[in-house]
Amino acid sequence: MQLLEERIRKDGIIKEGNVLKVDRFLNHQMDIHLFEEIGKEFYRRFSDAGVNKILTIEASGIGIACITAQYFDVPVVFAKKNQTKNIAGDVFTTQVESYTHGRIYDIIVSKEFLSPNDRVLLIDDFLANGRALEGLAALVESSGATLVGAGIVIEKGFQPGGDELRKKGIHLESLAIVESMDEKTGTITFREQ
Amino acid sequence: MQLLEERIRKDGIIKEGNVLKVDRFLNHQMDIHLFEEIGKEFYRRFSDAGVNKILTIEASGIGIACITAQYFDVPVVFAKKNQTKNIAGDVFTTQVESYTHGRIYDIIVSKEFLSPNDRVLLIDDFLANGRALEGLAALVESSGATLVGAGIVIEKGFQPGGDELRKKGIHLESLAIVESMDEKTGTITFREQ
Repeated sequence: MQLLEERIRKDGIIKEGNVLKVDRFLNHQMDIHLFEEIGKEFYRRFSDAGVNKILTIEASGIGIACITAQYFDVPVVFAKKNQTKNIAGDVFTTQVESYTHGRIYDIIVSKEFLSPNDRVLLIDDFLANGRALEGLAALVESSGATLVGAGIVIEKGFQPGGDELRKKGIHLESLAIVESMDEKTGTITFREQ
Repeated sequence: MQLLEERIRKDGIIKEGNVLKVDRFLNHQMDIHLFEEIGKEFYRRFSDAGVNKILTIEASGIGIACITAQYFDVPVVFAKKNQTKNIAGDVFTTQVESYTHGRIYDIIVSKEFLSPNDRVLLIDDFLANGRALEGLAALVESSGATLVGAGIVIEKGFQPGGDELRKKGIHLESLAIVESMDEKTGTITFREQ
């Protein structure tokens, strides 16, 4: 998605340790016009998949998922990290290892909101090692719902998550795939799509 | 807002300890059509305030803030809970006591995204004791930006947060104010507005 790649080149900041900061427009400050274009593009790529629910994970996936849901005309469910007082016992849960935070946490969805009748599209802002997306896919599988695919805004193509998920047969669509980036020159190379 | 009050009566669940669960449509599963009506109503109430930025807090405020931002045509910034590796040192921060989770946490906004030129509308899903909203207001004050007001979806009118914030002169608009609720009968009484 050219608009997105241009925006990453313009406003993305490459930091030590293969970190790509996009908090000017994606996951701290959020450019809602860009989100609308992202939502339209996800709809273009998954419009014939019969999606009736979007599943994402807190926190930074929620905004993109909500704007995208307007084009699909479906509700959004977000998986919560860790158990909170307000979630009752009847939940689907799995463990996820966070690359960014270096720890393991539980993700949780109430059983009320995923069922065998659902055709679920996963949406998230980033894909690197793919642990969060694998966790979401596991929750969908536990529920008996159908996983129709996953829409990712930025995939780090030099980390293994995307290719692993594709090998498992998940229909994965990443709007920008970073093939490599150079902290010193500030250069970002995207995979041709 | 009548549509919202009807939805709370229909799908809200009253639990022990004055907990109102609205996770069927507001803060776990999210009804995007309802969010659009909420966004339009916030716009109606704050359209002449010159808002150029919406500030919310992860996680459940983000979806409402993003849909609402479409009507104001402004970006959204969400305050993060706790420091993460991807946020650099230059941040506004304050401490918030969580009623739901019974602990104190830091909320953080990068200094890049709040400045004296900003006219900020706070958006959140719930207001009870008001600590999160107070924290957001403190971040806005630290930045020198102007706080034009706060839009809340559901205020628990029997808890002190809303009245305290109004006394401080904050222009607070709550779309539904729960005056009382009865766990045994399932009855909810809303404040006349």
